[in-house]
Amino acid sequence: MSSSAHHVAYFPLEDLPTAEVDRLEEVYAGLAGAVRDLVDVTLSTAATEELLEEARAAVDSVTAALRVRQSEGPLGVRHNGHGRTWSWGNAVIGPRNATAPPLEVVGPDEDGRVTAEVVLGPAHQDEPGVLHPGAAVKLLDHLMGVTAADRRRLTMTGTLRIAHHRPTPLGPVSLAGWISGEEGSKVFVHAELSAADGVTVEADGVFVIPRWARD
Amino acid sequence: MSSSAHHVAYFPLEDLPTAEVDRLEEVYAGLAGAVRDLVDVTLSTAATEELLEEARAAVDSVTAALRVRQSEGPLGVRHNGHGRTWSWGNAVIGPRNATAPPLEVVGPDEDGRVTAEVVLGPAHQDEPGVLHPGAAVKLLDHLMGVTAADRRRLTMTGTLRIAHHRPTPLGPVSLAGWISGEEGSKVFVHAELSAADGVTVEADGVFVIPRWARD
Repeated sequence: MSSSAHHVAYFPLEDLPTAEVDRLEEVYAGLAGAVRDLVDVTLSTAATEELLEEARAAVDSVTAALRVRQSEGPLGVRHNGHGRTWSWGNAVIGPRNATAPPLEVVGPDEDGRVTAEVVLGPAHQDEPGVLHPGAAVKLLDHLMGVTAADRRRLTMTGTLRIAHHRPTPLGPVSLAGWISGEEGSKVFVHAELSAADGVTVEADGVFVIPRWARD
Repeated sequence: MSSSAHHVAYFPLEDLPTAEVDRLEEVYAGLAGAVRDLVDVTLSTAATEELLEEARAAVDSVTAALRVRQSEGPLGVRHNGHGRTWSWGNAVIGPRNATAPPLEVVGPDEDGRVTAEVVLGPAHQDEPGVLHPGAAVKLLDHLMGVTAADRRRLTMTGTLRIAHHRPTPLGPVSLAGWISGEEGSKVFVHAELSAADGVTVEADGVFVIPRWARD
């Protein structure tokens, strides 16, 4: 199901002023950002085994402290009734999800283009220095869902066709997607992932507006 | 590029006894496992902001300690000349990569089936309780690459066609892939991702044996 479903399907209201949502997001994103750095150094460290074991114990104690109080159920997507929405846990865009880059999806702009710029590090590696092709598709899938939803409807991912032209080097990449056509309840989306030297992955998707969401 | 390229393309030798590789893997996987737990609790914790800030500071100090000595370059895929290979950093299968489930890919078995069983938690969420569709494709892409390589050749992902039948609930999922045909330098792979109640995502891929790798 496309992440675009977020914007309509499951959308609880939380009565928080926008400024407070922004402040809380900064707190959670700060912790998740620190965890992202830890994920990266866990891949690159050449520390002694003694230090590795100490680090593991320290991480376990932080985890234990944070576990004492946990919120029930998934984070989902929330809104505050004043136009502020947040999807903190999402595997692609969630600022609170240390496995998410996180992707900041922008648009659609006046030309209908939805874009994102992100720097992908070693956590997204396949071969040395190369972005995992599945990781590329994961980001494209999400951006295409947002593109299909077009800020105004629920769509579900139907089929995707992915063409890997060549390996994508780790580092800065950009994504762009746009609606290439519509036909009844179907929305056709084209998207590309590009490295510094051009497009490396292209995707065409068919998204469907479910019957129950058409009115 | 398919992760299967690992098995041939970039494959440095490290002169380590297999038992030592296993032991080191346990050390690194232990730390990465602890970081995975921290990633999850970062999503679910309802700790006070004071505790969140303390946790962030503690994580930062662990990261700083591990950064003092870092290995150069990517982890890649290594082998020890005694049949033991390891791909510790990989975004899908790397035990040292806290963003990887990690997926343990098994096979191909005597019927040519490549399979994997994994429990996917909140770090892989899209909608509440639902696996991110892109995360599903990321895992399928990897398993299909291993399937196409068939333990004996380099293949690169050409095109993938993904059909999302319905949302996949978070929790235990299983993946299976097999070669559905071969034609010259092309290898056709079919794969499925299933939840407890059946197949939720199907994928068909065309993998290519690059000219320079055909002999």
